[in-house]
Amino acid sequence: MDNAPEIILRPIGFVRNKYVENPDREDWWQELVSEIVIDESFEEGLDSLANYSYYIILYWLHKRDRDHLPLRINPRGRKDIPKRGIFATRTPDRPNPVGMITVKLLKREGNVLTVQGLDGLDGTPVIDIKPWNTGYDAMDGEVYRD
Amino acid sequence: MDNAPEIILRPIGFVRNKYVENPDREDWWQELVSEIVIDESFEEGLDSLANYSYYIILYWLHKRDRDHLPLRINPRGRKDIPKRGIFATRTPDRPNPVGMITVKLLKREGNVLTVQGLDGLDGTPVIDIKPWNTGYDAMDGEVYRD
Repeated sequence: MDNAPEIILRPIGFVRNKYVENPDREDWWQELVSEIVIDESFEEGLDSLANYSYYIILYWLHKRDRDHLPLRINPRGRKDIPKRGIFATRTPDRPNPVGMITVKLLKREGNVLTVQGLDGLDGTPVIDIKPWNTGYDAMDGEVYRD
Repeated sequence: MDNAPEIILRPIGFVRNKYVENPDREDWWQELVSEIVIDESFEEGLDSLANYSYYIILYWLHKRDRDHLPLRINPRGRKDIPKRGIFATRTPDRPNPVGMITVKLLKREGNVLTVQGLDGLDGTPVIDIKPWNTGYDAMDGEVYRD
């Protein structure tokens, strides 16, 4: 899409945790506690944050190579699962490697959020945080059909 | 965050529907059927898409002014709701105006997806599509505490 407009984002903050690379096990992030340090210029935008329990974090997968991507993959690298198109998976290797995960907000102190369940690495740029909301984000009848 | 790295995204496709501006009513998008036209170079990445029912669409709110943002707002413009920080709301006016909505996939034909429930306008650039997945996206006990 050579004539498409470029979209320029700027990080609103960064992740701090103990992992600088992915641990070699599934679901390593589920119990992990991380901090999100939001730029102080946005601190007022965090007002009332503690009123919600869960937040969706959008972040930039800054270590991913977005070029020369395969468009079909074995999900989770498992050769026993047939290949699918990348847009039918949550692989981090995407044309726009934007990560998205719902975390539990444990604490907010000033511009620092403490959260559980973030699957980004230390130093990851954060693009946005949005409250998880039943009306928008809960679906019933989710199905994967083989 | 003047020394933060810029993040550059490129649209993977565009929204087509009958609205070029927001209709003046709440929840105007819930029954709305839209098309998402994905760039043909990514068509192979749509393989197996029909195996999931719901997709999360990340898109670029291309008509929003991201400068001079208030950091606290009355949610949904309602003066009777006390102001909150923007990050405790889903307002489209955000430092990085990335929209996020879960839609129902009605049909895929080649590089064109037909979906229900997309709240983007005609011509909206699409950044990513990800399958909605209970393990990642369902939360129980969601609470808003006043």
